[in-house]
Amino acid sequence: MAGNSIGQLFKVTTWGESHGEALGVVIDGCPSNIDLDVADLQLALNARKPGQGAHTTTRQETDTVEILSGVFAGKTTGTPLAAIVRNQDARSNDYDQLREVFRPGHGDYTYQHKYGRRDHRGGGRASGRETVARVIAGAVAHKVIARVAIEVLAYTKAIGNVALTSVNSPQRSDVLASVLFCPDPIKTKEMLALLTEVKAAQDSIGGIVEIVVRGCPIGLGEPVFDKLEADLAKALMSIGSVKGIEVGLGFASATLRGSQHNDAILPTGFASNNASGILAGISNGEEIILRIACKPLPSIGMEQRTINAHGEEIILKVGGRHDVCVIPRIVPVCEAMVSIVIADHLLRQEATAAWR
Amino acid sequence: MAGNSIGQLFKVTTWGESHGEALGVVIDGCPSNIDLDVADLQLALNARKPGQGAHTTTRQETDTVEILSGVFAGKTTGTPLAAIVRNQDARSNDYDQLREVFRPGHGDYTYQHKYGRRDHRGGGRASGRETVARVIAGAVAHKVIARVAIEVLAYTKAIGNVALTSVNSPQRSDVLASVLFCPDPIKTKEMLALLTEVKAAQDSIGGIVEIVVRGCPIGLGEPVFDKLEADLAKALMSIGSVKGIEVGLGFASATLRGSQHNDAILPTGFASNNASGILAGISNGEEIILRIACKPLPSIGMEQRTINAHGEEIILKVGGRHDVCVIPRIVPVCEAMVSIVIADHLLRQEATAAWR
Amino acid sequence: MAGNSIGQLFKVTTWGESHGEALGVVIDGCPSNIDLDVADLQLALNARKPGQGAHTTTRQETDTVEILSGVFAGKTTGTPLAAIVRNQDARSNDYDQLREVFRPGHGDYTYQHKYGRRDHRGGGRASGRETVARVIAGAVAHKVIARVAIEVLAYTKAIGNVALTSVNSPQRSDVLASVLFCPDPIKTKEMLALLTEVKAAQDSIGGIVEIVVRGCPIGLGEPVFDKLEADLAKALMSIGSVKGIEVGLGFASATLRGSQHNDAILPTGFASNNASGILAGISNGEEIILRIACKPLPSIGMEQRTINAHGEEIILKVGGRHDVCVIPRIVPVCEAMVSIVIADHLLRQEATAAWR
Amino acid sequence: MAGNSIGQLFKVTTWGESHGEALGVVIDGCPSNIDLDVADLQLALNARKPGQGAHTTTRQETDTVEILSGVFAGKTTGTPLAAIVRNQDARSNDYDQLREVFRPGHGDYTYQHKYGRRDHRGGGRASGRETVARVIAGAVAHKVIARVAIEVLAYTKAIGNVALTSVNSPQRSDVLASVLFCPDPIKTKEMLALLTEVKAAQDSIGGIVEIVVRGCPIGLGEPVFDKLEADLAKALMSIGSVKGIEVGLGFASATLRGSQHNDAILPTGFASNNASGILAGISNGEEIILRIACKPLPSIGMEQRTINAHGEEIILKVGGRHDVCVIPRIVPVCEAMVSIVIADHLLRQEATAAWR
Repeated sequence: MAGNSIGQLFKVTTWGESHGEALGVVIDGCPSNIDLDVADLQLALNARKPGQGAHTTTRQETDTVEILSGVFAGKTTGTPLAAIVRNQDARSNDYDQLREVFRPGHGDYTYQHKYGRRDHRGGGRASGRETVARVIAGAVAHKVIARVAIEVLAYTKAIGNVALTSVNSPQRSDVLASVLFCPDPIKTKEMLALLTEVKAAQDSIGGIVEIVVRGCPIGLGEPVFDKLEADLAKALMSIGSVKGIEVGLGFASATLRGSQHNDAILPTGFASNNASGILAGISNGEEIILRIACKPLPSIGMEQRTINAHGEEIILKVGGRHDVCVIPRIVPVCEAMVSIVIADHLLRQEATAAWR
Repeated sequence: MAGNSIGQLFKVTTWGESHGEALGVVIDGCPSNIDLDVADLQLALNARKPGQGAHTTTRQETDTVEILSGVFAGKTTGTPLAAIVRNQDARSNDYDQLREVFRPGHGDYTYQHKYGRRDHRGGGRASGRETVARVIAGAVAHKVIARVAIEVLAYTKAIGNVALTSVNSPQRSDVLASVLFCPDPIKTKEMLALLTEVKAAQDSIGGIVEIVVRGCPIGLGEPVFDKLEADLAKALMSIGSVKGIEVGLGFASATLRGSQHNDAILPTGFASNNASGILAGISNGEEIILRIACKPLPSIGMEQRTINAHGEEIILKVGGRHDVCVIPRIVPVCEAMVSIVIADHLLRQEATAAWR
Repeated sequence: MAGNSIGQLFKVTTWGESHGEALGVVIDGCPSNIDLDVADLQLALNARKPGQGAHTTTRQETDTVEILSGVFAGKTTGTPLAAIVRNQDARSNDYDQLREVFRPGHGDYTYQHKYGRRDHRGGGRASGRETVARVIAGAVAHKVIARVAIEVLAYTKAIGNVALTSVNSPQRSDVLASVLFCPDPIKTKEMLALLTEVKAAQDSIGGIVEIVVRGCPIGLGEPVFDKLEADLAKALMSIGSVKGIEVGLGFASATLRGSQHNDAILPTGFASNNASGILAGISNGEEIILRIACKPLPSIGMEQRTINAHGEEIILKVGGRHDVCVIPRIVPVCEAMVSIVIADHLLRQEATAAWR
Repeated sequence: MAGNSIGQLFKVTTWGESHGEALGVVIDGCPSNIDLDVADLQLALNARKPGQGAHTTTRQETDTVEILSGVFAGKTTGTPLAAIVRNQDARSNDYDQLREVFRPGHGDYTYQHKYGRRDHRGGGRASGRETVARVIAGAVAHKVIARVAIEVLAYTKAIGNVALTSVNSPQRSDVLASVLFCPDPIKTKEMLALLTEVKAAQDSIGGIVEIVVRGCPIGLGEPVFDKLEADLAKALMSIGSVKGIEVGLGFASATLRGSQHNDAILPTGFASNNASGILAGISNGEEIILRIACKPLPSIGMEQRTINAHGEEIILKVGGRHDVCVIPRIVPVCEAMVSIVIADHLLRQEATAAWR
């Protein structure tokens, strides 16, 4: 049973390979009567485009999105929303030498064994290109949750050891002002310097992204398995490169005492927010804060030892055009995935609202 | 849309409240012809029973499991397996003072707002009691994955600042030798001392659990959303108290370079296991290592500020009989949840195996 | 992937074998705050109990239902509702001779081959006993749809060639006045006479049930696959013995012309109801009328040729205590299944109502 | 919760409106390593194209299918298979007069009320055009079930009162020899004559399609809700125009006795096939025979009374280019839907096969 859908009521199905004809998404369950223009989706897609500079691939992905169904006269119709992006500038030949090679840290080895075959070009389905579809869906989800004024904001928390230290969650304008989606301009510079150094070394590096959800109403989340943080964790962990998830204090909470961690409740509201907006799997109306850890990207220019499909030893130097760090490009993807989960849970919550 | 089921092919549905009549589980999709005795389930349940000593509740949960369907003449029949545990020694009166009080750090506040009402006794559905059903399901899952010799082992990695330092994953016998499921006897003593201190302070404390999956065949995991680590993250994050998840190096990978993190592939196999047994969402045959961070339990004896259902300020001292730390009792629950996910993905993988 | 759940938002999972310990149901997704007493469920169960007389089994099924979770202080809590019925008066020995015999027309043969083993006692999971769980779920569904005043009424349309001729759908009181749930007292007598004759011949006979849904709001049904009539057809076809389904005019519509079948729409409403309350898979506010055809029950006293598990020829005379016709006992089951589907679609419709 | 997906393991999601940009399908769960060429899909699509002659629309649907993902180097990859058909020759202006009119017998009224808006052009999502996506998916399903030599064959059983009388299920060559997919050449002529007459009367007419499944292995079907006949009934009832479903003897079984209906089992196999290949929801290895009743198409040239969105009375004469009968064009759609269900259940059965 394949797993290319996420969401129960706001159900997102993605398809497409890195160097196939196109990538796309079908959203089944998007409410009707939402103002939606193709420009809304294009704007979101543009945010995940490779930028200019040391930190990013030189692949030119124009990524023009087309809506094929589900929108009529500027509004959603309640029928499945289908959107596609044709692949362009896909230099498949770059990948010819990789036809039978298993690149370290990539899905080549596991895809080959799981499916008995694979589209080797640019990672095929396992490519970061796949997130094009996620970002489109996220843009639609954003429209859904806007009805109740929920905002999802993702930003760069750290690249390597260069980390944001501010404790307060930032504003969107500060995030967008940085080419790395890092709200601190000083840290942005340090991060860019680090990326330049890493690139020169033909290496890659990891990082941390933080996502904040503001304005989430009380009541989202469906215990005991589809708790809000559980579905958020799954959605974020499904993004390539992610190796860790924290909600609120995360691993730091393991060393705390209950008297430190519990949030007192006052007649005026919660006195603190260590719970990070979720209690027992259900949103409590406070800000939700999530963090993900990203491993360094596996495509590096340095020589690596590996094998081919015949089990023969290979010394590999990965060509192609690759990002040095999954940040900043993963940032809009995180925002998209969290928006999708929140939209889904908003609809799930609505289903029985009339009885409450 | 409620969320009390997990798994797609090995589908587990749990029900029951802490002080209701019973707790139970239905497993739909368990293969037929598996040897299964009620004693198998009872053994697993016993492992999550409160023990003796400073670290644990004095509630006596005898937790006798009964199989009501799906097993005939000692073997599973392929029909739904239903099992229940009647609640006993449930001193509901202990909770009378809490009828209208929202305990800090608990689900009282969010359950009340989400559902418009709640069973206030002992946390109702949000209680740790609910994990009784998970552990039963895990014991059945264990039988399923045993066919291909997969082993899942969970153990205590840290309580507060007392942390296991060994890098190798331990043996089951070492884990079972410790009342805290910590494979290191020295650390177990230190942890017990810490728990005694915390209990004396009428406080609680957090900790870290590590789970290792051995013998997992290549190919489990269903990209791009139901990646193996994504479903594992969801399953673990759905356990109460869990605030963080790491796969392999987790947050430590964020500061590494690709040349450090990538696992070279040799004709003899992977040279290292930084990927922690999963590449691009699919198991690669190596050991899978996961860690979860648990917040301190919210039930503490100290005075806390909160409000009641009428918004009035309350000074609360939680009575009842509570654990000082969710460890060790969460350890068998982690083992259960991971087993359930692995069993589910094993069946998912089987569905199309004949075509490969 | 097993199939013991039905419904997406009002999700019903049933379990249990005819002569196992118990039968039960878990409903996940029942809205909170619905008045529900165990007596509501018991009343529904009583309607499917074997009656007295020629037409029915002499097995005494007291069928006492117990609610184990999901209801607190007389109202649903929004958590999973679990209910069970212990099996009693289960003379398993009656079935000893059948341990290895495949009864014609029963699931013995297919269950054995599908699962490699089976609980042979009384049909196990394939027994009509399983509908106990459906009826309980239907009684809860009835409470859900009552919020918008939807009524579901099932009644006997025909037994063998004795058929109801009235074109108007009847009232509940007329249905309940008949031991066969047939609203026409004259036809009831004829049907009873037919059943007596069939029983004397040690045979069984088929029949037809009609189900009407009144007060259904406009908008239920989710094209293009989960159309209202599609989900109704599945739910009804999942009941043992059902071999045909009609919506509205059903097979009679195949010989009509569009000018005869189309329902004109007037400012005052639909001029006729050939569509039977559903247009393009979505309810239109009119009465929905369904019919199911039931085959004759396969358990008959006459000698039959069959084989055993070793492929050896057997002359079988089925003992045990059996109904002569699946009617009237299937009637409350039909009502239950339709109620479940309507409740599910009502919740599905609610999920996006706020955006419309 | 929308309903544009069908199948659990062979999951088919369709999208697209009659006069939108395109129609398409995503299949998630198609096994890898299946030979698949775009020509396979095109061939299936061609069978549902409007033909020439009295009985069919003059709309020229070239319907060129394009595979966008999931196939690489002539074989399926196990990743989602996406295919689209661009809409052409869509004279949307034909529908301008219908922008606010609710056509009798169509989904205009219910779509408008359910979603608050609709794409009025050509029925939008409710159009028969939507079956383009079903037929593509059916062609892929056909490839899946071919591994175990299952064949699905649909054919015309009746148009109006002109009905096939042969009791044996026909061969594919006989079916394909008829422009109406009716295996009897004499009846084909009579049916064509009837269609000509109906067309002259500016009317439409209903009919019956029969579908036979040959070579189905024992064991497909997942009781108690996802019984094979239940999922088949749902799949067929989800096709526009279908108002009735029969399995095997269907409504005729309601007047039979058990001694007539039961199929004796001999050491050499079943002595008859009244069960129509399914016992207790599970295939028994015999031929499965299904029949569906189709209502007359609602688009007729005669004047009809209806209302517009403002509730004002309208006298409507439907223009556009319409079929006189949903037969023969529904025949390949029936074949597709049954193939999809069988493929899905084949995979579901495989998932636990290793344990049996």
